[in-house]
Amino acid sequence: MDAATSSSMLPVTDRTRVRRLPARGVFDRAAIYAILDEAFVCHVAFAVDGQPYAMPTGFARLDDALYLHGAAASRMVRQLAAGVDVCVTVTLVDGLVLARSAFHHSVNYRSAVVLGRARLVTDVEEKRAALRQFTNHVVPGRWDELRPITDQEIKGTAVLALPIEEASAKVRTGPPLDDADDLQWPVWAGVVPLSTAAGDPLPDVHVLPGLTPFDRERLRQRGRA
Amino acid sequence: MDAATSSSMLPVTDRTRVRRLPARGVFDRAAIYAILDEAFVCHVAFAVDGQPYAMPTGFARLDDALYLHGAAASRMVRQLAAGVDVCVTVTLVDGLVLARSAFHHSVNYRSAVVLGRARLVTDVEEKRAALRQFTNHVVPGRWDELRPITDQEIKGTAVLALPIEEASAKVRTGPPLDDADDLQWPVWAGVVPLSTAAGDPLPDVHVLPGLTPFDRERLRQRGRA
Repeated sequence: MDAATSSSMLPVTDRTRVRRLPARGVFDRAAIYAILDEAFVCHVAFAVDGQPYAMPTGFARLDDALYLHGAAASRMVRQLAAGVDVCVTVTLVDGLVLARSAFHHSVNYRSAVVLGRARLVTDVEEKRAALRQFTNHVVPGRWDELRPITDQEIKGTAVLALPIEEASAKVRTGPPLDDADDLQWPVWAGVVPLSTAAGDPLPDVHVLPGLTPFDRERLRQRGRA
Repeated sequence: MDAATSSSMLPVTDRTRVRRLPARGVFDRAAIYAILDEAFVCHVAFAVDGQPYAMPTGFARLDDALYLHGAAASRMVRQLAAGVDVCVTVTLVDGLVLARSAFHHSVNYRSAVVLGRARLVTDVEEKRAALRQFTNHVVPGRWDELRPITDQEIKGTAVLALPIEEASAKVRTGPPLDDADDLQWPVWAGVVPLSTAAGDPLPDVHVLPGLTPFDRERLRQRGRA
């Protein structure tokens, strides 16, 4: 974890307390940040005229803040910039838990929730650092290989910062937990692990001859920057 | 698609209209249902005391309804059963779109959003059909292999139905769309495909000797039931 991050345990609030199966609750920053740093997308929940929405979008974490971005005219950006209450959720599905009864089927997962209000980032250097992290969150080190960002591009992108002050994670691991009476039922039971797999990179038609192909092993370095 | 589903096109409402990049909007049921049927989890957005939450959870689609379930005492179930406005979002991440500038980086994805109000399912046969679909949504055909569900288990599980009446999907496919001036920039650009991969099934310690191991190829039949 970065040196710039804060004290390791987050407070348990009435809104982040894990009500169902509290043993699954996780409140230390290192564990929460590892979940955030592994995911490619988050879901942002916010309400407009009383209707809640959960919108998928890219994000990045830098120190103790979660950054979102978008076009300045987008509904999500306008709402969040106005300071509404927001919830950002990240979910990693690690496995299918196949029990001997339908009732005990489950999913192994790691999810993290960050609650609060975002602020529109106006400082150009903070915006630049956040946009750098957006890129390197996906592919570590890619920012420095790209055509440098222009002032116009920085101006044209709205960046929002959500401080990670009220957050929690929830984790399920391990095998199915069948009723003792069901253990003799003649069906396979266990866990089918799931993971996100990267396929062969597909170059676009403009890739210059002689360039180093993209090495998908770089994705294994994610979350370690 | 099932014979029991309704007319193929959903209406575009002010709440489902795709504002940013409207060409990405999808409103036909077959395309939306294909996205729903492929995902293992959804995110359910609902507000409690003005605070929106996006909670990850399992789900299933049956005909023109999306079903959720949980313990009757869970906050999500209690809120949804009270008839609050809800948004269920499903997102499949298909690829990383790596451009020559940070600005044009993107993600290939398919997401579906269903808006409305859920109702608590009280009819035992509808509950049973929904719980069957929860199981078969994950592994086609598994329900019939399991220790049969008991009346007590059906009673002990709260099932919610959200009619699919106001819904839309959003899809991005294809290569990065770089500025013409950037095409000579010497960095690899293209798409890194992402998919959900199933690893070797891990039997639990109670699996009876001689049972057929779980064949993860069965997961390829998902969404075709």
